[in-house]
Amino acid sequence: MTLLLFAIFLAACFAAGSTGALFAPGDWYRDLRKPTWTPPGWMFSVVWTVLYLLMSWAAARVAVSEGGGLALALWALQIALNTLWTPVFFGLHRARVGMVIIILLWVSVAATSVAFYLVDSLAGVLMVPYIAWVSVAACLNYSILRLNPELSAANPAP
Amino acid sequence: MTLLLFAIFLAACFAAGSTGALFAPGDWYRDLRKPTWTPPGWMFSVVWTVLYLLMSWAAARVAVSEGGGLALALWALQIALNTLWTPVFFGLHRARVGMVIIILLWVSVAATSVAFYLVDSLAGVLMVPYIAWVSVAACLNYSILRLNPELSAANPAP
Repeated sequence: MTLLLFAIFLAACFAAGSTGALFAPGDWYRDLRKPTWTPPGWMFSVVWTVLYLLMSWAAARVAVSEGGGLALALWALQIALNTLWTPVFFGLHRARVGMVIIILLWVSVAATSVAFYLVDSLAGVLMVPYIAWVSVAACLNYSILRLNPELSAANPAP
Repeated sequence: MTLLLFAIFLAACFAAGSTGALFAPGDWYRDLRKPTWTPPGWMFSVVWTVLYLLMSWAAARVAVSEGGGLALALWALQIALNTLWTPVFFGLHRARVGMVIIILLWVSVAATSVAFYLVDSLAGVLMVPYIAWVSVAACLNYSILRLNPELSAANPAP
């Protein structure tokens, strides 16, 4: 049962992660001014693969526990926001809307982590790398907005 | 508690539904050949609003029930796929990838509905309009693919 649950949560992560291939960064992202600490491109797919495995494992543990309803509701919210960010940022090049989404994502991941911890402490711990990475991604989104003021135009050219 | 859960699930739906505004159909969709039974544009936002309210209510009922772990895992999967379809179809104009996503969405919504029904029969019934509408949307995606063979090119022009 836990394995089936893990597979279903991982399928949801696959839907979210497929946006990385469908909405590839491309020339637009390459030509943006980025902070010196920007992680190299290859690192994103490696890190996300690990994070998706960890968050699916955590969710499967919570789903077999009692009283995980609130925690799983929050997990559903964060995976929807996770799916949304990449098409908005890399597809539409709307970095300001992306910033709003990633702040909401950060809050929802933090809430999910706390709710997971209260149901199953290991599940909560498994979410820590995710919240750390979303913090980095949010800082990167913010820095890109600051370094590329043309992105703050109402409708940046695609 | 049920109201808080409803609000969280509805927030996930809002993330999914925001794609309708962010990735607007525009000229590309208007100029596609569409079947005669294509619903008018205004109907989509009305129907989706009702469906999001129903599926959030259903999920909140399941989340306060016991043994809803599998059902909520499936709900998370379907909301991620729901969030993914619009950017792929209206953003990338990739109707073939959209067809794959909407088939996976249909299967996940059907599985969610059955799992909901087994936990709480009303929650299962509340999902029926959703599965009906996704069936219509899948038929529309398929018809558009058939009527516009140029969309089957590997990389249709945006």
